[in-house]
Amino acid sequence: MRIILDGMGGDNAPVEIVKGAVLASGEIDHEIYIVGKEDLIKAELSKYDYDEKKIKVVHASEVIENEDSPVKAIRRKKDSSMVVGLNMIKNGEGDLWVSAGNTGAQVVGGRLILGKIDGIDRPALASIYPILGSQPSLLVDAGASSESKAHHLLEYGTMGSLFVEKVWGRPNPKVGLVNIGAEETKGTTATKEAYKMLSQAPINFTGNVEAREVPAGAVDVIVCDGFVGNVILKLTEGLALNILKLIKKKFLDGLKAKIGAIFLKNKLYEMKQEFDYSEYGGAPILGIDGPMIKMHGSSEANAVKNTIIKGIPYAENNVIQTIKDAMAELEEIIVTEEEEA
Amino acid sequence: MRIILDGMGGDNAPVEIVKGAVLASGEIDHEIYIVGKEDLIKAELSKYDYDEKKIKVVHASEVIENEDSPVKAIRRKKDSSMVVGLNMIKNGEGDLWVSAGNTGAQVVGGRLILGKIDGIDRPALASIYPILGSQPSLLVDAGASSESKAHHLLEYGTMGSLFVEKVWGRPNPKVGLVNIGAEETKGTTATKEAYKMLSQAPINFTGNVEAREVPAGAVDVIVCDGFVGNVILKLTEGLALNILKLIKKKFLDGLKAKIGAIFLKNKLYEMKQEFDYSEYGGAPILGIDGPMIKMHGSSEANAVKNTIIKGIPYAENNVIQTIKDAMAELEEIIVTEEEEA
Repeated sequence: MRIILDGMGGDNAPVEIVKGAVLASGEIDHEIYIVGKEDLIKAELSKYDYDEKKIKVVHASEVIENEDSPVKAIRRKKDSSMVVGLNMIKNGEGDLWVSAGNTGAQVVGGRLILGKIDGIDRPALASIYPILGSQPSLLVDAGASSESKAHHLLEYGTMGSLFVEKVWGRPNPKVGLVNIGAEETKGTTATKEAYKMLSQAPINFTGNVEAREVPAGAVDVIVCDGFVGNVILKLTEGLALNILKLIKKKFLDGLKAKIGAIFLKNKLYEMKQEFDYSEYGGAPILGIDGPMIKMHGSSEANAVKNTIIKGIPYAENNVIQTIKDAMAELEEIIVTEEEEA
Repeated sequence: MRIILDGMGGDNAPVEIVKGAVLASGEIDHEIYIVGKEDLIKAELSKYDYDEKKIKVVHASEVIENEDSPVKAIRRKKDSSMVVGLNMIKNGEGDLWVSAGNTGAQVVGGRLILGKIDGIDRPALASIYPILGSQPSLLVDAGASSESKAHHLLEYGTMGSLFVEKVWGRPNPKVGLVNIGAEETKGTTATKEAYKMLSQAPINFTGNVEAREVPAGAVDVIVCDGFVGNVILKLTEGLALNILKLIKKKFLDGLKAKIGAIFLKNKLYEMKQEFDYSEYGGAPILGIDGPMIKMHGSSEANAVKNTIIKGIPYAENNVIQTIKDAMAELEEIIVTEEEEA
């Protein structure tokens, strides 16, 4: 298998990206193609002892920056690592795309270069949702679209379920629709219709999930529109940060507290680690006709390594084909619902 | 001033409601009318030493339960504490409504009995959003409507701002629109239009606020539709609970940790208190032509006391009239925007 790694994407490119590739390469037998400015990437690679048969460099002279407008960037920067790399996937020269670069540009690049899977109306960004003391959930959509119709939510739930099952190896994952109550009749027009559609889908749909239950890991796949997904992810981040800040402040307030904090140093460190999901790797851009994994822009070598390794089953288990096969069933659900409406 | 207190609303009625009234009565000069089953309320009152000139009982033979359908309950239970009490406000026999009862029924009761403020399209539920280590924010809408148009968001922001200023006494409160990015062009059709409208409103609109910034207290008034509001409130509750659970687990794991936890006992207690917003009292149902304050269904005496005391300026400062006065200005904004669209 050939992994195509965007050597220029993310805040720490190419330094941490190349280091991550070298670390991953030591643990897997697949080839990694790092796409980007050859001189920079080779200079980084020269710092390490690695297997030259397993890590190769593909030159691309341009870089898509985080500030770039996605559509313009993909259209104009034809020799960027992103466009060159995605074309390798398209031409069968690569099997898995991994990047920490401009997320919007990855979504647009996927759509324009690889195309959408037949029958999928809206590609979605998935995101890893950390569950304290347990394995993470997958949230779809994390922000590719800010408004979603019922059939989009059906697509998100189905694709998310297949990903968690086939890539994370979690059998029969629970899929929940974020809503303001457990009852089928709660919520917006879109969530009410989506509830019906998801109930008919070939997945383990467990019904509505209230936001209160999400952090406890009530479901494996959290389905919501991109606006709500963004709110869930950002609020979790902001609140966790604020609570940790408060802990720090309280635990340094007074001698007695400081003594206690010394005894609890390891535990406090462990707690902080619970919020660190770099070990889970990246999350997929679903609905694109090719396996694409994006990771956080601030990813360091360890996250890059994990994203590569944990992404392999996405290509190896041919999940894209499984999603394509499921589409026929979804189309029937959508047609039936629309006729009834 | 006459405060009308729903003696039968909430999980702990009438015991904690009556106790709360007695506690409040000791600190204020206003009259409190407790509405509900006279025998039960008088039996509770008899446990305390209180000023009979300041606490009076108004009999109502029926009770609206949490499970009751709001519309049916208000229409059919004509002698319920809620219907009787709201009619007292309508007839000028009371100046402020306070209840821990069925929230939906309070909203419906407000609309049917007191009516909406002229020019307000959608009444909204406000909710207190706790900010760790600082004063709380007010979130509007907390779930009265699950879908909101731009002009509803304009109404929420304006009413919320006036409440925070006049009732909480916070001058020039910052009003933020929950969105997926800071830029004016981000979000849904509704948030984009609302951004423009809120910019023209006679309030201190500080622009979009990302969910990450909400727990840090970035704004005094958090404006969003009821679906997103519900997600923010419930997720905050669920995540805080999960983090506290994890702390407890980690801090009891091993002898060293246990020793540390003993030193930190007070601090851990203080942290838990940060999440307890009973001291802030209740939140208003905005857009109704009469001052209505609802509190959490599980409120105990202390929360009841605080809700009563902190609610007084809502009636005393004639905030309903201030909202009415602001409506003319809002109507101009809405008309202009719709002409342009």
